[in-house]
Amino acid sequence: MNKETLTVVKIGGNIVDSPSELNRILDEFVKLNGKKILVHGGGKIATKISRALGIETKMVEGRRITDKETIEIVTMVYAGGINKSIVAQLQAKGHSAWGVCGADGGIIPSLRRPVKDIDYGYVGDVKTSEIKSEVFSTLLSAGFSIVVAPITMSAEGELLNTNADTIAQSIAVAPSSLYAVQLVYIFEKPGVLEDVSDVNSVIENITSESYVSLKEEGKIFEGMIPKIDNALKAVSSGVGEVRISNSCLLGTGTTIK
Amino acid sequence: MNKETLTVVKIGGNIVDSPSELNRILDEFVKLNGKKILVHGGGKIATKISRALGIETKMVEGRRITDKETIEIVTMVYAGGINKSIVAQLQAKGHSAWGVCGADGGIIPSLRRPVKDIDYGYVGDVKTSEIKSEVFSTLLSAGFSIVVAPITMSAEGELLNTNADTIAQSIAVAPSSLYAVQLVYIFEKPGVLEDVSDVNSVIENITSESYVSLKEEGKIFEGMIPKIDNALKAVSSGVGEVRISNSCLLGTGTTIK
Repeated sequence: MNKETLTVVKIGGNIVDSPSELNRILDEFVKLNGKKILVHGGGKIATKISRALGIETKMVEGRRITDKETIEIVTMVYAGGINKSIVAQLQAKGHSAWGVCGADGGIIPSLRRPVKDIDYGYVGDVKTSEIKSEVFSTLLSAGFSIVVAPITMSAEGELLNTNADTIAQSIAVAPSSLYAVQLVYIFEKPGVLEDVSDVNSVIENITSESYVSLKEEGKIFEGMIPKIDNALKAVSSGVGEVRISNSCLLGTGTTIK
Repeated sequence: MNKETLTVVKIGGNIVDSPSELNRILDEFVKLNGKKILVHGGGKIATKISRALGIETKMVEGRRITDKETIEIVTMVYAGGINKSIVAQLQAKGHSAWGVCGADGGIIPSLRRPVKDIDYGYVGDVKTSEIKSEVFSTLLSAGFSIVVAPITMSAEGELLNTNADTIAQSIAVAPSSLYAVQLVYIFEKPGVLEDVSDVNSVIENITSESYVSLKEEGKIFEGMIPKIDNALKAVSSGVGEVRISNSCLLGTGTTIK
């Protein structure tokens, strides 16, 4: 039996911060066939509000620390402001959408990152094997697309700031026994480029085999390596294919499988 | 066949603003039997953030106007900050909770209040007959209590600031064919008082009959009349009983049925 398609689309803070880009991606999202989940990142609004409230951004070794006041702000902005704004925009396009964060029903359980050299504060690492796929599935089957904010919760009930890329990947991997899952990472370039300065040099397909030669030939820009490593890991964990693109639509960007 | 009990509890902004009072009510909420929905109001955080961002509160004839900037702030604060904080606190008590606002899946459809003498801005009036009770029911049956933020959405996808009392009443009325519904309004007094200055003068029961005599005898404080009118309307629309109390627990406050 052919499994139904589930497309998990991840958009970053740069899209969230640009009303016209966000609108373009949401138009595309609405057009996708099958079940759909949109995972969104943060954007600059949280920083703006923190500043207005006199909360300073704490950095340690170039990494942002999420202290108690910051997790309160990002929960408001990500799970309230951005999440419900996207839900409303999809609804205005006639598309039925349901907004969640990982804390709702504990659907994306995470572990507060253990303190080693740096205490990152209220930052979570997703427990992929404990994601409640059956709950996602219930909402999807009821006819809703799901919009996910990058806030999760520990078993102790702590709200935790969580990387949206990782959430998208975990959500894509978890239900791969139920659906034929496609994972799409939207970023600012049209795909993985052979020549970073040439937008027409998109590498259309990457497999674990071709990846080795592409790297040997120096054709993969260093900054893309963690992204492609993660994509190949998702594929080996049951995701049908991963696309890296500036568009949700099929046939665009780089397909990794 | 006996219907299962559903308790809808409404807490106002004064409870939300008091960590100790909120904790007491959540402890009680966890102990309630049957299915449960908690509707929360706003509180002062939205005003604090608006001020920090330099957004002035607009009032017309003593009524607050929800302009574009204000709906963005209250959506963040109510549907993000307060809602997810309550979800996390319930989870920390070992209670599985799911946070929503009325925009999620369009579960609480509303109409933007028409402009007559005053344009209230982004304010919604609930379309009680269109509430998606079956979706609430699906989440309740999956084992989650539902925490509802007072933001709703119009059919056009506008986010709307909406009275939490009205939301609680509409949510209680809508599924009364499925459940034996109790509606509890938490407020600062232990119940409807015969003598407003005496907390020991709680009127334990009010029916539509006794209400007439109580009013004739001047035993109902004027400020309570709209609350009791609404409660009796809920009862006549299928809600089993309404309680007005400072506690969720059975046997407290004034029961109206």
